[in-house]
Amino acid sequence: MDALTSGQSDRDAALGDRYGSATPSVGPWNDTITSLLRHRSVRGYRPDPVPAGTLETLIAAAQSAATSSNMQWSSAIAVTDPAKKKVLAEIAGGQKHIEECPLFIAWVADMARNQRISDQEKVDFACMPWLETFMVACIDVALAAQNAVVAAESIGLSTVYIGAMRNDPVRVAELLGLPRQAFVVFGLCVGYATEKAVGEVKPRLPQGIVLHHERYDAGQEAKLRQSYDAEMTKFSQRHELQAATWTQRVLNRLGPLRSMNGREKMRTALASLGFEIR
Amino acid sequence: MDALTSGQSDRDAALGDRYGSATPSVGPWNDTITSLLRHRSVRGYRPDPVPAGTLETLIAAAQSAATSSNMQWSSAIAVTDPAKKKVLAEIAGGQKHIEECPLFIAWVADMARNQRISDQEKVDFACMPWLETFMVACIDVALAAQNAVVAAESIGLSTVYIGAMRNDPVRVAELLGLPRQAFVVFGLCVGYATEKAVGEVKPRLPQGIVLHHERYDAGQEAKLRQSYDAEMTKFSQRHELQAATWTQRVLNRLGPLRSMNGREKMRTALASLGFEIR
Repeated sequence: MDALTSGQSDRDAALGDRYGSATPSVGPWNDTITSLLRHRSVRGYRPDPVPAGTLETLIAAAQSAATSSNMQWSSAIAVTDPAKKKVLAEIAGGQKHIEECPLFIAWVADMARNQRISDQEKVDFACMPWLETFMVACIDVALAAQNAVVAAESIGLSTVYIGAMRNDPVRVAELLGLPRQAFVVFGLCVGYATEKAVGEVKPRLPQGIVLHHERYDAGQEAKLRQSYDAEMTKFSQRHELQAATWTQRVLNRLGPLRSMNGREKMRTALASLGFEIR
Repeated sequence: MDALTSGQSDRDAALGDRYGSATPSVGPWNDTITSLLRHRSVRGYRPDPVPAGTLETLIAAAQSAATSSNMQWSSAIAVTDPAKKKVLAEIAGGQKHIEECPLFIAWVADMARNQRISDQEKVDFACMPWLETFMVACIDVALAAQNAVVAAESIGLSTVYIGAMRNDPVRVAELLGLPRQAFVVFGLCVGYATEKAVGEVKPRLPQGIVLHHERYDAGQEAKLRQSYDAEMTKFSQRHELQAATWTQRVLNRLGPLRSMNGREKMRTALASLGFEIR
């Protein structure tokens, strides 16, 4: 098999794993893109440490992402201390992989840093206490973290985002010594996957549902969601998951308030951390 | 020069451009990471169209990013119609590159899609009207879009995020026919950079400011910010920018309310689009 053929078969395999039978007709392609498609969230890590300098490599990638008006709202806290990771795992509802992974990165929406400039220069920042600015800070964090994920996976590491840091943002902030106006948006486990934990690529909704041309159009949605439900049923059966279809999974996840694990109190928690979100 | 030496010199050049004299000691490295570090936001495009299938490639990369609980909150609207791009450019305060670029992608926090499941299945979604859920949707969008940016740059295309879609989220939603509970978080120009617009990599804050170990620590911040200010002064002089230091740029950007371009009304605008953000 020559290089071109090998590239095409990698591409087709990656698309098949991601979309099942609803494979889109794609254009330009390369190994970087194949690697993006092969992303899997990994929830089991070997104890092996990451190579020296890995953290600095990931942060360099993260900081290279776009940041709104170059305000650079994000900070990262690297956690390797087992005792600290144990508490974080507990806050996250007992996610053992937080304890297992050699490197845990807490990604911080850090409005405190720019607030310190306001304080030091004695210039009131009229732009701080708004939903818009809070959103921008969270988006900055997400863009940065995703670059770190891409970099990590490109060097053979695995990752998983830990949204459950938001189960108790106040306790996480205390544990990591955050100043007011800083909070952990999510965590990220980084390390080498155990063989068992590598898992399968999870299928996503067909492009016909999420990609619109010129105007939003949900005309094909009902039909395409059925085909995705069938795809996810097969996936669920292979993995012995409870909810068979994706539709059922959405109903389970968004229906009962208890599935928020207390995160409906986010606004109050953030207010107590010094965030005004008008 | 052998491959290893060439790789190292690419790495060192990329780190030098990104950090100036405050170069971090990094670890594992490869061409993908060099490419992440070389990111520049581009604000000038040649009229050449992107290759057939490019959009589908970018969306496949975007959908492969992690999504919280697989809820897949994001949609994308591809805009190529010149009349529509002209209006979007106007909303963004006259950003000509929106008109110039052959492909504009509006990235949508799409809570409408899952709401339709609630409506069709007649199951009330108690988890919808919360700041937490809104944040998750925006973060999902950001992770997806950043993967698309990485994919685009890996095939020689340039991009720039357009946060100014939020100058008037209601008008953007009308223009793109969005249902209630959907809004454009940001746009993305995609295309081939004009020679003049390629520009220089923008230096970022030293890692000593943004990266913390085990606990948040701003102890070195004042000193390191001074060195970054000096770096940005050199950058500003090369580009004839008004604000010399980064500190001054932060003061200008966050001090006066007028620099929000009306986005302090975001909460009201989102309420009128059907978002409850308790």
